[in-house]
Amino acid sequence: MRSIDVCLSPDLLHLYNIEGKVVVVIDVLRATSCMTTAFAYGVKSIQPVASLEECKTLQNQGLICAAERDGKKAEGFDLGNSPFSYMSESLKNKHIGMTTTNGTLAISVSKSAHQVLIASFLNLSAITGYLSEQPHNVLLLCSGWKGKVNLEDTLCAGAIIENLKDSFDLECDAPLAAQRLYNQAKDDMLTFLKDSSHVRRLKNLNIHKDIAFCLTLDTYNVIPVLQNNVLVKMKRTEASVS
Amino acid sequence: MRSIDVCLSPDLLHLYNIEGKVVVVIDVLRATSCMTTAFAYGVKSIQPVASLEECKTLQNQGLICAAERDGKKAEGFDLGNSPFSYMSESLKNKHIGMTTTNGTLAISVSKSAHQVLIASFLNLSAITGYLSEQPHNVLLLCSGWKGKVNLEDTLCAGAIIENLKDSFDLECDAPLAAQRLYNQAKDDMLTFLKDSSHVRRLKNLNIHKDIAFCLTLDTYNVIPVLQNNVLVKMKRTEASVS
Repeated sequence: MRSIDVCLSPDLLHLYNIEGKVVVVIDVLRATSCMTTAFAYGVKSIQPVASLEECKTLQNQGLICAAERDGKKAEGFDLGNSPFSYMSESLKNKHIGMTTTNGTLAISVSKSAHQVLIASFLNLSAITGYLSEQPHNVLLLCSGWKGKVNLEDTLCAGAIIENLKDSFDLECDAPLAAQRLYNQAKDDMLTFLKDSSHVRRLKNLNIHKDIAFCLTLDTYNVIPVLQNNVLVKMKRTEASVS
Repeated sequence: MRSIDVCLSPDLLHLYNIEGKVVVVIDVLRATSCMTTAFAYGVKSIQPVASLEECKTLQNQGLICAAERDGKKAEGFDLGNSPFSYMSESLKNKHIGMTTTNGTLAISVSKSAHQVLIASFLNLSAITGYLSEQPHNVLLLCSGWKGKVNLEDTLCAGAIIENLKDSFDLECDAPLAAQRLYNQAKDDMLTFLKDSSHVRRLKNLNIHKDIAFCLTLDTYNVIPVLQNNVLVKMKRTEASVS
């Protein structure tokens, strides 16, 4: 049977062998929720980069660029890190550059995997549907907050585990912890997360609407996938490969 | 108000500033449960060392030595890692050397803290009583399994958080995750842990009795504390310092 594991922080990734695996990057608040939304609204590609400097270079090359640091839009860029800013006709078929505090870093450390996918609550069923049909072992990588474990990414990993528990072996304890936290939280995730550090951080930034939206399940049937260091929307044929 | 945080693995300790803090090392299965038991039964001191070689050196110097690797007693040493092996008159007032897969490593990376304490379910109330009376910020360090997060240490950290939540600010999300897992598990921890990797590992080694014992609350009113790189039993006067 295939196995599935959860890495609760990019700072623990050295403990996991990702060769030959599908790595699923999760950054619920808000990078991977933004990416999912962007592709649902017709964005052509997203190039994730680790630094503001690299993002500025992409901007100078003519890309529309999104940059977030510490929950806020970085100065001089076109977009911040709100999924609502991607619900725009003007972004259709556009190539975007993006750097965020945690999510794009998690993507950059996963590049040696067989495949890198982007998950959020917004595309939960699309992700679990694809994972259950493909033949590889899976590692869910929570982006966390500056290396520390966070609740919302752990819950999203737990939701994926809960959906796949019958067709995958759970490795080690992190999948169990994530799954049990999700089952405890699932009926009211907003309340469960209200004391979490990132929700408190974003609340200070007045982003209640973003938080509620990012905790919505299955809004979009899209899977962002990394190809040649650029995220694109997975084609239906790939998504149904068994 | 003082703050309390949880570091879910020694491999995440670089993200935490331990200077001036009390670090509480947790390795429920079984290093810190053994240490607690040992002091309850009158052991004079335990010198934790990271490697088998260092432990062998201590043995050659005349210390009784405990060494465990991958759940098993390492060859050529006097004791393994079962708390029951410390319930012996013959160890009273003795100096012991100890190396284990995870717990003694966690202690060795905590040495720059203001104070290093040893916690397990067995001395839960002793630990929380002391922590609530002393003035420093606290970091609970889960020993994990070879760097990976495990359930049993997370639950023990959660139990401490649950006891101290009204007198400490919880930092970041790890304390919340640990506390909520503990509250979910507390009525039947053995069942909650039955799928955990370490319990499965120890079951293969036939150590059911050890597991059940290590999940017992408040068996002993002792606090092991690190002094000059050696663990000793905290004296009553220190334990009541406010």
